[in-house]
Amino acid sequence: MAQLNPTADFRVGVVGAGMMGADHIKRIASSISGATVSAVIEPDEGRAQAALANAPGAQAFSRVEDAIAAGAVDGLLVATPGFLHEAVLLPAIEAGLPTLCEKPLTPDPESSWRVLEAEQAGGRKLIQVGFMRRFDPEYRQLRELIESGDDGELLMLHCAHRNASVPDDYDQNTLIDGSVVHEFDIVPWLAGSPITSIEVKETRRNPLTPDRLSEPLLVLIGLENGVLVDVEINVSIQFGYQVTTEAVFSEGIARIGDPTGLQNWHRGRSSITEHADFTTRFATAYDAQVQAWVDAARNGEIAGPSAWDGYRVAVACGAGVAAMRDGQLHTVDVPETPAFYA
Amino acid sequence: MAQLNPTADFRVGVVGAGMMGADHIKRIASSISGATVSAVIEPDEGRAQAALANAPGAQAFSRVEDAIAAGAVDGLLVATPGFLHEAVLLPAIEAGLPTLCEKPLTPDPESSWRVLEAEQAGGRKLIQVGFMRRFDPEYRQLRELIESGDDGELLMLHCAHRNASVPDDYDQNTLIDGSVVHEFDIVPWLAGSPITSIEVKETRRNPLTPDRLSEPLLVLIGLENGVLVDVEINVSIQFGYQVTTEAVFSEGIARIGDPTGLQNWHRGRSSITEHADFTTRFATAYDAQVQAWVDAARNGEIAGPSAWDGYRVAVACGAGVAAMRDGQLHTVDVPETPAFYA
Amino acid sequence: MAQLNPTADFRVGVVGAGMMGADHIKRIASSISGATVSAVIEPDEGRAQAALANAPGAQAFSRVEDAIAAGAVDGLLVATPGFLHEAVLLPAIEAGLPTLCEKPLTPDPESSWRVLEAEQAGGRKLIQVGFMRRFDPEYRQLRELIESGDDGELLMLHCAHRNASVPDDYDQNTLIDGSVVHEFDIVPWLAGSPITSIEVKETRRNPLTPDRLSEPLLVLIGLENGVLVDVEINVSIQFGYQVTTEAVFSEGIARIGDPTGLQNWHRGRSSITEHADFTTRFATAYDAQVQAWVDAARNGEIAGPSAWDGYRVAVACGAGVAAMRDGQLHTVDVPETPAFYA
Amino acid sequence: MAQLNPTADFRVGVVGAGMMGADHIKRIASSISGATVSAVIEPDEGRAQAALANAPGAQAFSRVEDAIAAGAVDGLLVATPGFLHEAVLLPAIEAGLPTLCEKPLTPDPESSWRVLEAEQAGGRKLIQVGFMRRFDPEYRQLRELIESGDDGELLMLHCAHRNASVPDDYDQNTLIDGSVVHEFDIVPWLAGSPITSIEVKETRRNPLTPDRLSEPLLVLIGLENGVLVDVEINVSIQFGYQVTTEAVFSEGIARIGDPTGLQNWHRGRSSITEHADFTTRFATAYDAQVQAWVDAARNGEIAGPSAWDGYRVAVACGAGVAAMRDGQLHTVDVPETPAFYA
Repeated sequence: MAQLNPTADFRVGVVGAGMMGADHIKRIASSISGATVSAVIEPDEGRAQAALANAPGAQAFSRVEDAIAAGAVDGLLVATPGFLHEAVLLPAIEAGLPTLCEKPLTPDPESSWRVLEAEQAGGRKLIQVGFMRRFDPEYRQLRELIESGDDGELLMLHCAHRNASVPDDYDQNTLIDGSVVHEFDIVPWLAGSPITSIEVKETRRNPLTPDRLSEPLLVLIGLENGVLVDVEINVSIQFGYQVTTEAVFSEGIARIGDPTGLQNWHRGRSSITEHADFTTRFATAYDAQVQAWVDAARNGEIAGPSAWDGYRVAVACGAGVAAMRDGQLHTVDVPETPAFYA
Repeated sequence: MAQLNPTADFRVGVVGAGMMGADHIKRIASSISGATVSAVIEPDEGRAQAALANAPGAQAFSRVEDAIAAGAVDGLLVATPGFLHEAVLLPAIEAGLPTLCEKPLTPDPESSWRVLEAEQAGGRKLIQVGFMRRFDPEYRQLRELIESGDDGELLMLHCAHRNASVPDDYDQNTLIDGSVVHEFDIVPWLAGSPITSIEVKETRRNPLTPDRLSEPLLVLIGLENGVLVDVEINVSIQFGYQVTTEAVFSEGIARIGDPTGLQNWHRGRSSITEHADFTTRFATAYDAQVQAWVDAARNGEIAGPSAWDGYRVAVACGAGVAAMRDGQLHTVDVPETPAFYA
Repeated sequence: MAQLNPTADFRVGVVGAGMMGADHIKRIASSISGATVSAVIEPDEGRAQAALANAPGAQAFSRVEDAIAAGAVDGLLVATPGFLHEAVLLPAIEAGLPTLCEKPLTPDPESSWRVLEAEQAGGRKLIQVGFMRRFDPEYRQLRELIESGDDGELLMLHCAHRNASVPDDYDQNTLIDGSVVHEFDIVPWLAGSPITSIEVKETRRNPLTPDRLSEPLLVLIGLENGVLVDVEINVSIQFGYQVTTEAVFSEGIARIGDPTGLQNWHRGRSSITEHADFTTRFATAYDAQVQAWVDAARNGEIAGPSAWDGYRVAVACGAGVAAMRDGQLHTVDVPETPAFYA
Repeated sequence: MAQLNPTADFRVGVVGAGMMGADHIKRIASSISGATVSAVIEPDEGRAQAALANAPGAQAFSRVEDAIAAGAVDGLLVATPGFLHEAVLLPAIEAGLPTLCEKPLTPDPESSWRVLEAEQAGGRKLIQVGFMRRFDPEYRQLRELIESGDDGELLMLHCAHRNASVPDDYDQNTLIDGSVVHEFDIVPWLAGSPITSIEVKETRRNPLTPDRLSEPLLVLIGLENGVLVDVEINVSIQFGYQVTTEAVFSEGIARIGDPTGLQNWHRGRSSITEHADFTTRFATAYDAQVQAWVDAARNGEIAGPSAWDGYRVAVACGAGVAAMRDGQLHTVDVPETPAFYA
């Protein structure tokens, strides 16, 4: 990889402009600092054109080799179906391009092994696989709790993976290699121990399950350190999307995936964390505010409270301070809103 | 303002490099798409240098007029103490620069009025005030609920604003113009009606309150539409930071600010929203993953699951699919981790 | 009062067989140990007869004096409207009868004073007033928390008192002397300090409030120790019944009245108590089980799992122990249910 | 059984005065309406005497046959260890006595079968087995939800059974026949379908587990209707006592055993039930109040708010009504508490 100019954006080529690819293009364009989508690699011209609308300045290519040859990209984000991954990863490695590859790496161990060999031959780790749960704040908190030993030793994990419904191309194997695949990655990462055995148990079929599928299932995963993991995989449950993990420790229980965030049962109490100060409580609000302002300011506009809002609040503060001083009720008198601010 | 190049970053001058300014500099550098910190305007040289470390390529200025004269900025983010705002806002308006100004606009109605006059004379809205709660997802949800009428008409608001402790420069007036100021903005925004009266009630003093302060207080705010609002302001409460609002409707109650997110009591049930699909449940994780990858990839590194992780999961998927097919326990055999990936 | 036989039931005369009286009659007959309803004192014959159906062996009287003269009661439970209380309490005191009087003692201070004088003249405390919140487990827990000082000193109380709707005889004064009356009792009991001042604030009227009422209201109560209490009284809110209290301490917050039970925010965490063992977790179940069995056994019946259920479980235990020993799946074979148990 | 006098108490003989027996004696004496402990059957004299202290008027017997012969009991409550049950149940059946027998009925299917035969020969169902979970409000709510079909069909049950620790006589088999035995009863009762298979999986041993035990375990239970049930049995977990069940439906999830009560995830929301009126919200308080009053009144005392409390509240109500009428602050002036009430 050529030395990058530290102030120039990292130029990403997104490979595949289906649902996930289009989502990543919008993400890079609207939320990621220091990167631009410079190329959309997608053989379907309709999809490619739709994606380009969200990637100002990007070029379209139908093959990854052409984007590389044109020097149009500093790295690749691969969002094609899994069976196409190998054909993108090998040239990416050849070109020395950092690559974020949506899961799975490839659909089977043999093709994955070929990718590993190519990467090792190249001498540098270039490929990151898109197991995004490792970046979820609650999984991170749970892992820290496990590592801390604060609740004692980890003994079991109960996982549930529930989808309201699944798309038409989701088949019986996808239950394992498209859904439980996330637990296959995250469970060893949480427990600090590799998988040694897998067993799958049937339960009563959901009458709302599509004909081609037989689910829900209970998957039992054994880890090298003796921890037993059960995973409910359940993809036609209608009510919503829910991914939970309950960790059983020698002295407590921790649960993630509910709207409360991580709950910890320990020493006779079930507790959740409160914020320590405004920087965490309103982190999202600060980010959203500045991003909205930047987006509007580029067009010479504002996207939030105006100076008039600031004035009205200044009047209220004056009345509030006076009311605090004398204990009386104070009226707040603000002039008519000027037409300029209406 | 000159026409911006659509692919070039918006160049922000941050005015004031204290705690809030430094925080905004890091935010723009690490989380905001389409913007760069191009100038740090700060008379204290030590602070200026510290801030520049997080803003590669930015220039330092001691006065805002110099940064403007140098053509170094497309917009300003003002994070100085409030009493210095007017002296920054007037030249910013003069120069036609979009400006995000931390609250308060200015500390008193008279100076705020001068800013309004200047902005109107300029003919374009340039100033956005940093009442960031309007960008908080829960306040937005609550406002939507009020507007929807789903729980009936809004009748009351109970607000609490609790800090573990406050810094040394926080004085008695700051209770109103530094803290309750947020309610003075957000309450009319939520209720769709302006403030008409304010009253402040004392309660028992917190023995842990610094000598210079007398708090907590209960602030009663009357709105034009008859809604009565009470605000507990409480800044030495030790246990953490908590900002809650309980909205009383004609047919229900909604509460925000707890770890659960918005809770709604309606038709005999108290409920919270579940996710509909993975795009919201894991939105933070996807953003964090791609940002981490971009940051690492710029240095030719990876910052997440490697190809080896992808391979191990491919092996587990193979065993899992086989276990699903035959109902038996399958062992998962992964070769030793190559040194390259260790 | 005559010396009671320790094994004989305490004979209660219930005065007033309206909604509350009928409820108390059922309670004594079905849930209270050591007491029987021996008399129903109610001038309305229809009500009296309906009530007697739930009080086997009780006599009906139309006047309390007659029940006393007949020697039919060891004590009285008064559940008439408040304006009739004085006329019952004075003869009860005269006769030396322990009396549980629904709130209010009487509707005004003057008549209450006359009752006090009579009781003092009698030389023994005979009257207990039905402020039942003092017996609610959550109010008790909150009071213990306040007394313990574990969250520091009590500074404020925020109370809400919400009814879905109110009956036709509920008038404007009832907001205070029928509903907030509970806070007038429980707040000094919680805070350990008497009431010194009261103020009532109007808010936007609920459009669903009956024409004769104007509510919700915010009642501000000052206590001698400086604690300020606000009470939302709100009686047409449709969604359900909710009575909450949020206690603000110098170092934390505690809230009661939600389905979770007492929540405590302290030292950075919000927590609720877990059970220590089965005696508290299943206390209600044990009580209900034994009561159901006693009620059925009096008729020679059973009201729960039969011996056949016990047999089936014994078979499952046998299979379960074997499965634990050998790690294999064991089938559970139970014969057809005999007709006797079907 | 002889015809009972409808107003006389049902006379219970409690067999076994260990921990459970002593608990039942207190329960009947203090919380159960219509029953008295008339006999304690316990060969250990120390235990028998301790138990009699809580059962005024009861006689002690060392053998159940003697209590029966003495005509001292209308029914029996059996709380001896399970291996002694058969020897009590057979004479009880012989004597035609209604009997509540703590679980298990007997420890093995053969002895249970003998009890069944005796009961059938007697021609009337006399034995109720103490699976008290069927009387727990949350299990009842869950069963009603399953029967209602409101969340669709039941597909799976995830159960957890967690004890802080266990007594010294708890051995490896007790994990199944003393703890999971509750699930063996309640699961078919919830799901409406009998158990057909059982499998037990090991997980990592808790380092805090006593040497004689190997746990926690995961027990898999198959039901005739296809529902798969997993039960975590975990008895050295230190933090407290927790028994939860999560029911997986075709369109939702319901969970019981947390401090919130039954939570239901359905149609995009997770919800819990609010009270409809005060009769359920304060049911426990009303019961406790009347019981406390009866217990005190038997001794000519009161056990709650006095007439003086009633007077003080009457004064506050007067001030409150006046404050509501004129919108002003009213002071509340109560005379000194008379010595009589101090």
